[in-house]
Amino acid sequence: MEHTYRLVVSCPDKVGIVAKVSQFISEYGGWLTEASYHSDQDSGWFFMRNEIKASSLSISMREFKDAFTPIAEQYGMEWTISDSNKHKRLVILASHASHCIADILHRWHSEDLYCDIPCVISNHENLRSMVEWYDIPFHYVPINKENKAKANEEILALCQKYQADVVVLARYMQIIPASICQHYSSRIINIHHSFLPSFIGANPYQKAHERGVKLIGATCHYVTEQLDEGPILDQDVIRVNHRHSKDDMVRLGKDVEKTVLARGLRNHLEDRVIAKGNKTIILD
Amino acid sequence: MEHTYRLVVSCPDKVGIVAKVSQFISEYGGWLTEASYHSDQDSGWFFMRNEIKASSLSISMREFKDAFTPIAEQYGMEWTISDSNKHKRLVILASHASHCIADILHRWHSEDLYCDIPCVISNHENLRSMVEWYDIPFHYVPINKENKAKANEEILALCQKYQADVVVLARYMQIIPASICQHYSSRIINIHHSFLPSFIGANPYQKAHERGVKLIGATCHYVTEQLDEGPILDQDVIRVNHRHSKDDMVRLGKDVEKTVLARGLRNHLEDRVIAKGNKTIILD
Amino acid sequence: MEHTYRLVVSCPDKVGIVAKVSQFISEYGGWLTEASYHSDQDSGWFFMRNEIKASSLSISMREFKDAFTPIAEQYGMEWTISDSNKHKRLVILASHASHCIADILHRWHSEDLYCDIPCVISNHENLRSMVEWYDIPFHYVPINKENKAKANEEILALCQKYQADVVVLARYMQIIPASICQHYSSRIINIHHSFLPSFIGANPYQKAHERGVKLIGATCHYVTEQLDEGPILDQDVIRVNHRHSKDDMVRLGKDVEKTVLARGLRNHLEDRVIAKGNKTIILD
Amino acid sequence: MEHTYRLVVSCPDKVGIVAKVSQFISEYGGWLTEASYHSDQDSGWFFMRNEIKASSLSISMREFKDAFTPIAEQYGMEWTISDSNKHKRLVILASHASHCIADILHRWHSEDLYCDIPCVISNHENLRSMVEWYDIPFHYVPINKENKAKANEEILALCQKYQADVVVLARYMQIIPASICQHYSSRIINIHHSFLPSFIGANPYQKAHERGVKLIGATCHYVTEQLDEGPILDQDVIRVNHRHSKDDMVRLGKDVEKTVLARGLRNHLEDRVIAKGNKTIILD
Repeated sequence: MEHTYRLVVSCPDKVGIVAKVSQFISEYGGWLTEASYHSDQDSGWFFMRNEIKASSLSISMREFKDAFTPIAEQYGMEWTISDSNKHKRLVILASHASHCIADILHRWHSEDLYCDIPCVISNHENLRSMVEWYDIPFHYVPINKENKAKANEEILALCQKYQADVVVLARYMQIIPASICQHYSSRIINIHHSFLPSFIGANPYQKAHERGVKLIGATCHYVTEQLDEGPILDQDVIRVNHRHSKDDMVRLGKDVEKTVLARGLRNHLEDRVIAKGNKTIILD
Repeated sequence: MEHTYRLVVSCPDKVGIVAKVSQFISEYGGWLTEASYHSDQDSGWFFMRNEIKASSLSISMREFKDAFTPIAEQYGMEWTISDSNKHKRLVILASHASHCIADILHRWHSEDLYCDIPCVISNHENLRSMVEWYDIPFHYVPINKENKAKANEEILALCQKYQADVVVLARYMQIIPASICQHYSSRIINIHHSFLPSFIGANPYQKAHERGVKLIGATCHYVTEQLDEGPILDQDVIRVNHRHSKDDMVRLGKDVEKTVLARGLRNHLEDRVIAKGNKTIILD
Repeated sequence: MEHTYRLVVSCPDKVGIVAKVSQFISEYGGWLTEASYHSDQDSGWFFMRNEIKASSLSISMREFKDAFTPIAEQYGMEWTISDSNKHKRLVILASHASHCIADILHRWHSEDLYCDIPCVISNHENLRSMVEWYDIPFHYVPINKENKAKANEEILALCQKYQADVVVLARYMQIIPASICQHYSSRIINIHHSFLPSFIGANPYQKAHERGVKLIGATCHYVTEQLDEGPILDQDVIRVNHRHSKDDMVRLGKDVEKTVLARGLRNHLEDRVIAKGNKTIILD
Repeated sequence: MEHTYRLVVSCPDKVGIVAKVSQFISEYGGWLTEASYHSDQDSGWFFMRNEIKASSLSISMREFKDAFTPIAEQYGMEWTISDSNKHKRLVILASHASHCIADILHRWHSEDLYCDIPCVISNHENLRSMVEWYDIPFHYVPINKENKAKANEEILALCQKYQADVVVLARYMQIIPASICQHYSSRIINIHHSFLPSFIGANPYQKAHERGVKLIGATCHYVTEQLDEGPILDQDVIRVNHRHSKDDMVRLGKDVEKTVLARGLRNHLEDRVIAKGNKTIILD
């Protein structure tokens, strides 16, 4: 993968933003390898992502930041710049089910997913051996009605200790408390095993089976304090029919879950996702 | 299309049903061109559809019915036999939108959809010329708050006069009263412009746009007295993203709506659909 | 649809192109409603499409063109600017099959496809009544071994008389001679009824059936002198199985053909397609 | 999974086959949990798969076989009966790429794929640790121009020693010699990384990239002596565009490859696939 800097910006739309930003980049020799823009008619906001060849820039990232700050202030921008070589640190929370976490670990191990995975946290022990095969620390944090608050504190402490940039709930079947949600706003990614907003909450395959739908799906979204209501990163579906039992749906759904989670996560890791209100802009 | 008889049966499951029925068919020389079975573990019911080459049978359909009746009674069967050469009579109800009705009429005219279309009923005049180009009578039945009951009576009377076997709501934006629902139980087919059970009721594309879903869909279902809650015949989706306005979704959704409606309708016309509880068995 | 100008540019890639062009646009007050860029690593070319709100520009299109020309020359650009209010003139060539042309005409009539359709040309008479219902002139140009050259001259003359901007082969089953291909380079759009490069040439469904594929497809491409080898605009597929006869495939394929053709055509009409070598860049 | 016997039959089509077979099954108390039939118009052959609840049969499998043999002979049937509890023995051949084998091993380990995996054979060492984590013997059989015949003998010997019922080529990039093909006719399953018949042979993603296709795919097929020409079990595709490099296609294609291979393999393991000529009948 080429070494790049990713400049991601959102601000109120007006004439001349692209000109200003691209003029700035080009002044320092910046070669765009990718550029995506979106002008949102409803909100009147503008979104942009510029991917700049690192070797083409005549200044350091720190100098870039300093020089860009006045422009950002002038236009009222929310912005980040990130270095493609600096891997985000991904902490995975898992429960008993293995398909999503196994998929992420394999992609990471195959160098198809650029990130570091400093640890896995789970409320079950069954995945320890798989995780440790990858030389990743595994933390067992059992959670139940009695110890919930304390367990969640421990999880937050682990995320902080391992300097998580992003937290993935890989079919982690526990509710994330507001405290953690706020701490990692737009940085906790969940995979819900239904095509949201259908079948919010528990047992979506059971509900899908009862309703007799002809497609089942999965939804990758940022976690907010409202259960299964956060901004959607990606969704997909798979065809089912009357011959499929609820257990068949569970099995078929796994393939959709892991694919959708991997796609959403990938976009997040590549700084392609901007959450605005309850929606996402995916700049690809 | 080959001339066949379609024997469709559902009954409580037990050993020997296939043997009994296929034995019966074979006794009279019946050559199966297609046969589908489904044993539903949840309900304990059995479903079967046999398509029999008409020319192979040594008895008439009437004789077949008489001879089969004792078997049907013995096994507690719900059953129908239909003649592929006897086209079902399809009455279309439409409003202002043309895409679904235009699609059905073109498929029928191209002989891709085997049915008769004795009339179209609409609460708008704008589709008259298109319908009449196909030499199909067009009935304008305006409907509003004041005349609702009377208009629905007129619609029911027209359906009966034209001996409708099946009624299709081709984006007909009015609620069908219980009286008509009961009259044509499992024979009124609606296309709803969302992936049910998401976005029941009015303005589903608006709601989808607000929720920020990444796929929009359409659902073909039998109409029951519960709005958008009837048994689902078919569903499909199409990918959307942040660049799509609500109007784009409306436009993109049209392609899904007409395709899903055509598939569901086709299965109904070929006697492949059995509604059981709030689900459908599609024997293809 | 908002009134915009579409500036579409391709040129050898180098630092500062976006800056230069967006600077130019912003100088004259141009408000970008959409902007897409692509930097092709293999060829070293850069591609961009800017959609500019017409009302925001302080100069006329003619003045824009004059002022932009020096920049274009400096960067060695191939470029066009078009007015979204000036509909492209689309001439349709059809044979006997009606599904693709019926679909295009319906989309155009429903104002889902922005273009003018000055005439339809066919080597069969069967579609005349459908075309004339839309008040579009229908020209019957029979073609056979003996009159081929003359018929093609007549077709070219008609396209020129009607000032075609784009020619669509809506399942027109005749080979387009080099003379016409050259005249409308990257402006003749064909729909081939297979997933190219599989099953080039005649009878693709027959070949697909014989090979036992599990998906059949359609391909929308620009016509070049090499049969079915031109740059691909869009493709799609639909699932089939052992129960589908070749005739079923023909029927199922129709839905894919018309959808793929409509998508490709739409992108062309919106100036989103740049053909480069034997590939297309679709700037959406 | 319920314990069943699967009776799979193919024979020249004639009146009364279903009656005869289902009569036979029902005589011994056989309860059908699933039944699929296909009458092929082109070849005049009939195909059937009956899944019978094991506990419902009043006779043993051996007795069943003995009693069924005269019927099979009478109708000229090719037939098998298998016990769902008796897992097929699956030998995996792999090269360097890990995605397909990792996917199969994970499904097997999660009990989503019913089979035994007595060993993995590879011409590279890199997957040893992953395979051994699952407690599966790993055999390294390097292969090169010089030792090809001998290496293939060794592979065949290993397959026989481990009593392989089915051999999966999980992106095993070597050609299987005729001797092994014949030994395991319709029992060697390959995943080819293109949508066959497009891009037969080496480097299909490179070829797809050069042709500018808008979808890439994968094909699961039985291996025959003709490279990439065997009967197709399953296929699928994924959308790509001009932004995707050949390496992106390789990465995106992996998801399709492993899904398609898993689906094809699953159908094979459940005795749902009948190869007839160069096509497959999938009785699901």
